[in-house]
Amino acid sequence: MRRANRIAAITKTLVERPHHIFAVGDFADLFGVARSTLSEDLAIIRSTFELLNMGKVETISGAVGGVRYLPELSKEQMLQHINGFCERLQEPQRILPGGFVYTDDLISSPMLLQTVGQIFATKFQMEEPQYVVTVETAGIPVALQTAHALNIPLVIVRRQSRPTEGPVLTMNFLSGPARQVETMSLSRRALPRNSRVLLIDDFMKAGGSLRGLVDLMGEFECPVVGKGVLIETGWPTEKLIQDYLPLIYLQEVNVEEQKVHARPADWILN
Amino acid sequence: MRRANRIAAITKTLVERPHHIFAVGDFADLFGVARSTLSEDLAIIRSTFELLNMGKVETISGAVGGVRYLPELSKEQMLQHINGFCERLQEPQRILPGGFVYTDDLISSPMLLQTVGQIFATKFQMEEPQYVVTVETAGIPVALQTAHALNIPLVIVRRQSRPTEGPVLTMNFLSGPARQVETMSLSRRALPRNSRVLLIDDFMKAGGSLRGLVDLMGEFECPVVGKGVLIETGWPTEKLIQDYLPLIYLQEVNVEEQKVHARPADWILN
Repeated sequence: MRRANRIAAITKTLVERPHHIFAVGDFADLFGVARSTLSEDLAIIRSTFELLNMGKVETISGAVGGVRYLPELSKEQMLQHINGFCERLQEPQRILPGGFVYTDDLISSPMLLQTVGQIFATKFQMEEPQYVVTVETAGIPVALQTAHALNIPLVIVRRQSRPTEGPVLTMNFLSGPARQVETMSLSRRALPRNSRVLLIDDFMKAGGSLRGLVDLMGEFECPVVGKGVLIETGWPTEKLIQDYLPLIYLQEVNVEEQKVHARPADWILN
Repeated sequence: MRRANRIAAITKTLVERPHHIFAVGDFADLFGVARSTLSEDLAIIRSTFELLNMGKVETISGAVGGVRYLPELSKEQMLQHINGFCERLQEPQRILPGGFVYTDDLISSPMLLQTVGQIFATKFQMEEPQYVVTVETAGIPVALQTAHALNIPLVIVRRQSRPTEGPVLTMNFLSGPARQVETMSLSRRALPRNSRVLLIDDFMKAGGSLRGLVDLMGEFECPVVGKGVLIETGWPTEKLIQDYLPLIYLQEVNVEEQKVHARPADWILN
């Protein structure tokens, strides 16, 4: 196997499993080359990714020596992707009776959400989350793609518990502008105490669900190290949580003019 | 940019978006090289992947000329992955009161399911599905990873409709051994008529949910070109659907002996 072949194989292996640390020695053994040769291969992949803004290839020194790929996006790449997402959101045929916006196709698109997950990973990786936590249903695809990009498990909080979950912790929370009492439930064994969790959801109005998730994490004695939402609405202006990271700001849905106004969140624009 | 750099960049681009056809000319322009040079690059990636059983790189001839990566797994790789999955399933601490098996951590693991999605993609790609369809909640992660591997959209059928879906089609179906009446609901705009759909679910006992999905697809006038389930139980022996592809056969849960018996499905073993 020549260098070009090794680079194809190593690149594939790294990219398919972001954040996973592969032992450099294992690659060297697989291809039957010296570690120094393999280090040169990795340097080529690293510099290529750097030059083309394709994320980061990081070598970890130490007794074993490892290498991993981090799917980091530049601000420009984030802006471009979120702008594209906003354009889709603003398609007038998405407006539904009652001023709702149809988003099901967008928030379950594997490809759109792959990049979204990479954006959340880029922003939250330094907090070293150990679990991504979301509440069913619509937030699951974006949460899964985020967990994938971070190479950590996904935990899905249920609205209702099921017998296949074993003993569960159930909690009431207030949802929506009408402050209805709703229920969240999570298996006792889903999250070890003191796990660092990243909360991810698809949509946030007042933030009742996220507030509920924060409180539930308190019951599990798990620190919340980040909160990400794909789409935040401009209304109500008063939110139930602080310090969350939205990607899209849904400013207005004008039913009469059949117009949706969505834009990237402030932190992406500035 | 030298060949080694180009190969790193092209490999990353192809692998991150399986089944997507990239124009060869775009790559050639990006790197400022002749198409013949780029064809040689692609030949190296193709032969490397072939040699190491890393999936298929396919060049499409024609006026434009394209290339795509298909995440195909060999029978041996499937067997190895599913065996590993079965080992996890057989951990005795998974047994819950009532003879249920705790699987939440496995069926929402991005990495375990990435390979599962690639297995379903390998088995169903020749049917050319246009949508992956599942019913909430537990099947969503495996369905999303399958849709990702096939580069097609995911459609999530709801148990209850919500105002953000617009007009919906609602259907009753019989679920479980007790034949309870349950409800499925899907937005009218989620699936265009005559779409070729692949049904994916995480767990199947009698097959009531899948039977319901098949009937619902009939109402949408969409042909079902495949049905995949991650885990099938040995009980009841009489199933409500035919021609489905299970990956794991959950043979027995022995509460007294604290033993779970799971094995790869017959087609993988033979």
